[in-house]
Amino acid sequence: MRPRRRIDHVRETAGNGLLDRRAFLTTGAGALSAGAFMAFAPSGAGAAGPPEIAAEMKVAGAPFSAYGSPATFEREVTRTLIRSQPGTTGSGASRTPLEALEGTITPSGLHFERHHNGVPAIDPAQHQLLVHGMVSRPLTFSVASLLRYPMVSRIHFLECSGNSQLMYQPTPPTLTCGQTHGLVSGSEWTGIPLRLVLAEAGVDSRADWILAEGADAAAMTRSVPMAKAMDDAMLALYQNGERLRPENGYPVRLFLPGYEGNMSVKWLRRIKVTDTPTMTKDETSKYTDLQADGKSLMFTYPMEVKSVITRPAPGLRMTGKGLYEISGIAWSGRGKIRKVEVSADGGQTWADAALSAPVLAYALTRFRIPWKWNGAPTVLKSRATDDTGRVQPTRDALIAEHGVKAIYHYHAIQAWSVESSGEVKNVYA
Amino acid sequence: MRPRRRIDHVRETAGNGLLDRRAFLTTGAGALSAGAFMAFAPSGAGAAGPPEIAAEMKVAGAPFSAYGSPATFEREVTRTLIRSQPGTTGSGASRTPLEALEGTITPSGLHFERHHNGVPAIDPAQHQLLVHGMVSRPLTFSVASLLRYPMVSRIHFLECSGNSQLMYQPTPPTLTCGQTHGLVSGSEWTGIPLRLVLAEAGVDSRADWILAEGADAAAMTRSVPMAKAMDDAMLALYQNGERLRPENGYPVRLFLPGYEGNMSVKWLRRIKVTDTPTMTKDETSKYTDLQADGKSLMFTYPMEVKSVITRPAPGLRMTGKGLYEISGIAWSGRGKIRKVEVSADGGQTWADAALSAPVLAYALTRFRIPWKWNGAPTVLKSRATDDTGRVQPTRDALIAEHGVKAIYHYHAIQAWSVESSGEVKNVYA
Repeated sequence: MRPRRRIDHVRETAGNGLLDRRAFLTTGAGALSAGAFMAFAPSGAGAAGPPEIAAEMKVAGAPFSAYGSPATFEREVTRTLIRSQPGTTGSGASRTPLEALEGTITPSGLHFERHHNGVPAIDPAQHQLLVHGMVSRPLTFSVASLLRYPMVSRIHFLECSGNSQLMYQPTPPTLTCGQTHGLVSGSEWTGIPLRLVLAEAGVDSRADWILAEGADAAAMTRSVPMAKAMDDAMLALYQNGERLRPENGYPVRLFLPGYEGNMSVKWLRRIKVTDTPTMTKDETSKYTDLQADGKSLMFTYPMEVKSVITRPAPGLRMTGKGLYEISGIAWSGRGKIRKVEVSADGGQTWADAALSAPVLAYALTRFRIPWKWNGAPTVLKSRATDDTGRVQPTRDALIAEHGVKAIYHYHAIQAWSVESSGEVKNVYA
Repeated sequence: MRPRRRIDHVRETAGNGLLDRRAFLTTGAGALSAGAFMAFAPSGAGAAGPPEIAAEMKVAGAPFSAYGSPATFEREVTRTLIRSQPGTTGSGASRTPLEALEGTITPSGLHFERHHNGVPAIDPAQHQLLVHGMVSRPLTFSVASLLRYPMVSRIHFLECSGNSQLMYQPTPPTLTCGQTHGLVSGSEWTGIPLRLVLAEAGVDSRADWILAEGADAAAMTRSVPMAKAMDDAMLALYQNGERLRPENGYPVRLFLPGYEGNMSVKWLRRIKVTDTPTMTKDETSKYTDLQADGKSLMFTYPMEVKSVITRPAPGLRMTGKGLYEISGIAWSGRGKIRKVEVSADGGQTWADAALSAPVLAYALTRFRIPWKWNGAPTVLKSRATDDTGRVQPTRDALIAEHGVKAIYHYHAIQAWSVESSGEVKNVYA
């Protein structure tokens, strides 16, 4: 037989086996010998005819379900709760298992959680949202009335400002990728442009802020600049197509694209229009960034440009030398991701990864690059650049600028060591 | 107080209250008097100060969960199984509740199901995919080996070719929107370009087809043209970020963007490279389109341009006259959606709806347009045009061309009547 399409060329674009990001994406490009990715020749009758009839083909399968669940074989793919506040069940954060996921949408069941006093059970028939303060006409909205308003749908990441905070510590955490960096998730959010509701209430021209208050037992409360409220802020009602999950603010939450997660106040019950920030407990005692000199930065809203390799990563193992794909996520609270570079030699040389289209503002962007691992120990890194030109810093540079007293806004380049055993570890390198 | 931004203008762009699609999307445009969408003035102390502390704020909320679920208040939002094959539990189809959803991503738990003999329980550690037939080197792939291959992520719809088939009947079904049209769903699919695996096996130049076989008890089997296999076909491993759900082909399925759903063979165990179509039972006795003259069309792959208004729609009720947003989904198996027009006067006049960005090929596109309902009975319609110029036909035109013996590929304009009571009904109009 004459081979119709032959993949017979490969180009190394950076040290230690990083291949061109397009190597395997177009027919006729790249080098691919049989078995390079661990496919193998079939044994027995397989090569000549169909494989044996599998056991599951001899019995009728399971029936239909009203609301589906993951495969039982995936039961270990869950969120991980780390460090709940002592004496409470509802104050802490659970992380998305990034190393088990692909693409840019996080299933809502695995979206990270950050609660300050648990998840309230809110009856949407009883819930009301009040808009008051410096407005011409205070207004109350039932959930039923909100469902009549014009909506927009946007794919956006949400990241807790405390994500990756263990990386400020002197030794790298021995946790999975998701347990370390999984306070970020991506969803399609659908809701009402906040400016529409504010316009209906009639905002005073001297008002420069709003206060957003949640209906949880912690009364989570944050001040938001009017400019953001009138720009792309939304009252989110749907997440990934269905109504919000309870742990993500059911029946209605504020959503502020690109801003630190806690400001997208869940279980939203009140918006007060004000002339100054309200200086709530959640923006004075919490969510300020303590610097090396003992002073704190306040109102540090946008999450910075960041990326992490999710495959391979701690929580996964390499299965022998040969071809792999390195895959990860990048995002920026300043806009779109312009570029992600990957290094397979500890940062000596870098190659551009492929970005999965569409690349959207304030959204997770999946990057990928093929890698031929020679089986020797090495260190993998990724470095993101956003469309404002901001580049993800090294850990040393981030700490030189902000110190190690901070627990928020950690966004430095992440290094994973790959051992010859196939183990993948978190390292400072 | 001086109002800062005032929405004080509205323009009717088509008959019976259809407003400009941008009316409420930009600050300062459109007309919005207080209460127009059913917001109301707060009673009691609400206007002056914060609302009373809600009961749920006085107790700690629920703890974290390893894998989340929808709110209990949303428990009626489920798939609906309609007409399972008599004597079986696993042959039939369950529908996505379109009227309860928004945006373009369908939560995987609500993705439609179409099974021919139930859902097999496949252990990924045991499952193998064989690629054989007219190839230089037959290859077997374990799931572990597939997970090393280069992948792509794409947001695509999947539609069963039998979707909306009840609309061929002489009287319109009295079912919800989802029960009638919910054999379509949208997901982010991540997987391996099929051409890569075929190239590794070495396809004979005389081969023009592949055969794809599923590991279910029905051994679902379809022939796929080599051109599609080498274009955008993928071996899908992830759906909406996580591994495939069992009912969507876990651990690996074929995915053919834009093509009728059954060809995206689930639980994929075999690809045989062939020179002709295999003429399986699933492309001869089933999935052919019986025409009025008694002949059948075969190999009718792409799903046609189509749209449906999901809000308002049967299964929902209007809550009194005033402003609403009309919202729906459009898609085409031929490419991208170029335009969706909406009529609020039974098709006499039409206005362009806003399309939610990004508009992607072979993906659900959300369209929206504001509507001021005067409370009188009327008929709503939507009409989609794709980027090949194809326009969704009327039901009369579709039936004139294809007859009423067909059960597949129904894609005509859908009419919903709105009664003065607020009830929404399926009508032929």
